[in-house]
Formats: sequence, structure tokens, C-alpha cells
Amino acid sequence: MKNIYAIGVGLIGGSLAIDIKKHNPDVIIHGISRKDATLNTALELGLIDKKATLDDIKNADLVIVSIPVDATVKLLPTILDKISDSGLVVDAGSTKEDICKVVENHPKRRNFLAMHPIAGTEHSGPTAAIEGLFVGKTNIVCEVEKTTFKLQEKALKLFTEIGMRIRYMNPIEHDRHIAYVSHLSHISSFMLGKTVIEKEKNERDIFDMAGSGFASTVRLAKSSPEMWTPIFKQNKTNVIETLEEYINNLTHFKDLMKKDDFDAIFNEMESTNHIKDILNGIS
Amino acid sequence: MKNIYAIGVGLIGGSLAIDIKKHNPDVIIHGISRKDATLNTALELGLIDKKATLDDIKNADLVIVSIPVDATVKLLPTILDKISDSGLVVDAGSTKEDICKVVENHPKRRNFLAMHPIAGTEHSGPTAAIEGLFVGKTNIVCEVEKTTFKLQEKALKLFTEIGMRIRYMNPIEHDRHIAYVSHLSHISSFMLGKTVIEKEKNERDIFDMAGSGFASTVRLAKSSPEMWTPIFKQNKTNVIETLEEYINNLTHFKDLMKKDDFDAIFNEMESTNHIKDILNGIS
Repeated sequence: MKNIYAIGVGLIGGSLAIDIKKHNPDVIIHGISRKDATLNTALELGLIDKKATLDDIKNADLVIVSIPVDATVKLLPTILDKISDSGLVVDAGSTKEDICKVVENHPKRRNFLAMHPIAGTEHSGPTAAIEGLFVGKTNIVCEVEKTTFKLQEKALKLFTEIGMRIRYMNPIEHDRHIAYVSHLSHISSFMLGKTVIEKEKNERDIFDMAGSGFASTVRLAKSSPEMWTPIFKQNKTNVIETLEEYINNLTHFKDLMKKDDFDAIFNEMESTNHIKDILNGIS
Repeated sequence: MKNIYAIGVGLIGGSLAIDIKKHNPDVIIHGISRKDATLNTALELGLIDKKATLDDIKNADLVIVSIPVDATVKLLPTILDKISDSGLVVDAGSTKEDICKVVENHPKRRNFLAMHPIAGTEHSGPTAAIEGLFVGKTNIVCEVEKTTFKLQEKALKLFTEIGMRIRYMNPIEHDRHIAYVSHLSHISSFMLGKTVIEKEKNERDIFDMAGSGFASTVRLAKSSPEMWTPIFKQNKTNVIETLEEYINNLTHFKDLMKKDDFDAIFNEMESTNHIKDILNGIS
């Protein structure tokens, strides 16, 4: 593998570029982005070796698509049109159903592998790219059977090499599960931030009182709306379901407080404490 | 100051003991707890120098009360009954109104200083005590004017010495503000954990997919129900108000999704992004 084209050179694309280059010093990372300024930053930071355009990807051994999921759905068929017979295209989107669907009948479907490397931070853009972001993290691979065996192998080698454990799942299951463990967390955090900011408008002092607990629950409220709006749009049904369950649980908690049933409040918390054990291994 | 009595030797009491001893090597830290096993652990960990009982606090220069806030309300009058004329009693509770009210007419009121050192982790008990927990953190002091001037000075010196910035506030304001920046965060985190655990019952795979984002939003769901149930009980009115605002914001977000108004969804997130700036300085 020689020529890798990174479409999108932000947090995910940039961090993948760093780790892949580290384990494969001979590869040339070509960066593609809507914004030339982004590519220049990526060059300065050494995330990419060269700037490129979509027409160049006919020369690609590997194309990594790490852009907002709506842009991926739009662009993926065109990318597959251009890829060579031996080239592999992977995406890193947080949703999988729409992305898999848009190429299901594409003549080059077997050159595509749908992935979701579950790693990230609340920051975005090339400056957010960091080394080792994927070590010990899970990479969900969808519809692996629809990808050429040789290209499956190539991808498996590449992503285990940078420290990821691979899990295989179908796109519908992926989107249903990820709504709970990722998408809902972002909304709960954004709305927590909103609730406190609304209060803070008239209460300047309030943030002097914010501790590390608040900082950690609200961390994801720093995430990029450009990235997250299309995720919520594509995973609408599942996200609405998780939101309804979350709101019901919050309302139940509030009602127990109104009824002064603090034994039940205690039990609510105690039975959730075992999240400790469940979270073992997640940093 | 020679004899310090720590009533409660867990995360807060134990961590205060470590830092105070570090800056005042000559003090003797006496530990008091309902459970002898807790005191033994605190002794083994070197958090305290000696075990003691409530009757000993007549010899105290300083008594630090770091126990669940319902126990503080019950015990505080008795502690003040026993304290010497020159002794200082401080508490570290997450609520202030009930605690200040229970001693407002106590003959020894001027020997008491109501505090809330805003610091902590999701862990509890003596083994959770760590050095430097309070460095750079805020210590809210309530009704300072009701405490003898000399004892105010003593406390100010002690807690600035261990790295805290002091803020003065009345108990009612404190409880109203802290409901937003601390108590609500805990409930949002507990209910997020509950929502995902309920799902996980039938979906074993789901936690393989949990990333660091979920881990950080759900971190506070590991907190101690013994500590938090009485906090929610004492701050019931404020906490219910914050919960209602939070639930309204979540419901509004859900309705925008149902209406496919993703421009509004984008704006909801973008306008909350400036939490970044607000959080500067909070680790």
C-alpha cells in the first residue's frame, strides 16, 4: 500500500493519518478537503504529505472518508466511481445504515468497507488530530461480506496495526446501539449545557461554582454541530427513541422527588452504580 | 492550631486531612466515624493520626464535618454543644440552607462556619481521599458574618493555604446555584446510565461500543447514593426546578427532530458550544 487519500483531515481523518503513517512510514498521505485552508493547516501539522483533489483518487490504494455523514452519503458513489479495481474505500461515519444503502447496488460495492472507529474527543478540525487516538478502541465494521476478501484483509491488518479491536455488526444494529452509547450522550450533554447557560444569563456567579463533575458531564457540548447535525438526522428514529426513554427516566426521577419517595431515589442511584463494572476498560 | 477532629473521613474529609496535615505538620488529626472499620482504613492510609469519639471534641481547635448532609443537620447542634469557646466547627456539605437553619439560634453559632468546598470525584470512602484535591477549587462560605472574626480568619488562612479561592454567598443563593452546576449534572448522568443499562439488559453488545464520550457523561453515575439522596432531599425545590428546565430542553430538542427542523438542531448545538469559553479554568 503506497498512496492513501484522506478525504477529510480533521479529528478522525487527521488522527488516522498520523497512526497509519507511523506504522507504514513509506505511504504517502494525500489530503482532500472542501477548504484549502484546512489542507494547508494539515500540511503544516504534518498530517498529510500532499494536497490532492477527488480526480486523483484513481491512483489510490486506500481512500479514507472522514467527513460529516451527509457529505459521505452524497460523495461516496462518486468516490467509488473513481476508485481503481484494486483500491479500497473506507468511511469512518457515526451512522452506517444510510451510508451502506447509498452504495448497495454500486458496481464497485466490493471496493468499499463501512466502518465506525469509535474514538474521538470533543474537539474538531486538523488541530484536534492526535497520535494514538485509536489504541484499544473498537472499530465496528459493517457488511464485511460485501467487500472483496483481499480488501477486507488489507483493512483488518491496517486497523488492528494501529491498535483497534474489530467488531462485525450489521448497519441497522449499529445505528440502534450507537444511538444509546454515543448519540444520546451528546444530546444530554448539549442540553445540560443549554440549561445552565440559560440560567447563567442572569446569574453571572453560577460558573464560579461549577466543578469537575459539571465539566465532565458537559464536555461533549463542545462538539461540532457540523458533524453532529447530520448524524442526528440520519439516525433520527433511533435517537428519538433513546431521547424518549431518557426523558421518561428523568421525569420518573422528578416525580419520585415530588412524592418525597427518597428511598426510591436511593434505589435509582444504587442500581445504576454498577455502571462502574460495565465501564471497566473504557477510559 | 493543634487538634483537628475530622467527623467523616471519606473522599472530602480524608482529602482535607491530607492537605491540612501537609501544610501544618504539627497538627494531630483525630478521626470520628459511625463505622470503626472506616476509621481503621483511614488510620492505615495515614489520613488520620488517632481514632476519637464525639465526646473528645471538647478538646478540638477545629472540627471538620464531612458526612451526608442529613447526618450533618442531625449532628451539628450536638457538635456545637460540645465545642470549646475557642473551637471552630466547619462543615463541607453540598447544601447550605438546612444546615445553617438548624443552628441559627444555637448559643455557639459564632463557633460555626458553613462551607462548601466544591471539589470531588465520583469515588467515595477513605480510599478515595487524594492529595491536592482542593488546589484551585472554589470554597463557598455562607453567613460568614455570623462567625467570630477570629475564627473566620483561622478558616480563611487554613483553606487558602491548601489552594482554595474563597467566595462568600448566602445559603439560599448557594443552594439555588449549585442545583444547576452540580446536582443536575449528577441526575442527568445517573439517568443516562439507567437508560443505557435498561437497554443493555437484552443487548449484551452495547457496551463494547461505548467510547470515552459516554464514559465521561456517565462518570457521575458512580457517585454514592448515601451522599446524594439527602442532598436531593434538602435541595428538593431547586433540583426539581432544574430538572423541569432540563426535561423541557430535551423535549424541545426531540420535537425539533420530529419536525425535521435540523437547522434549529444545528443552532441549539452551536449556541451551546460557547460553554467552551465558560468552562475555561475548570478541569
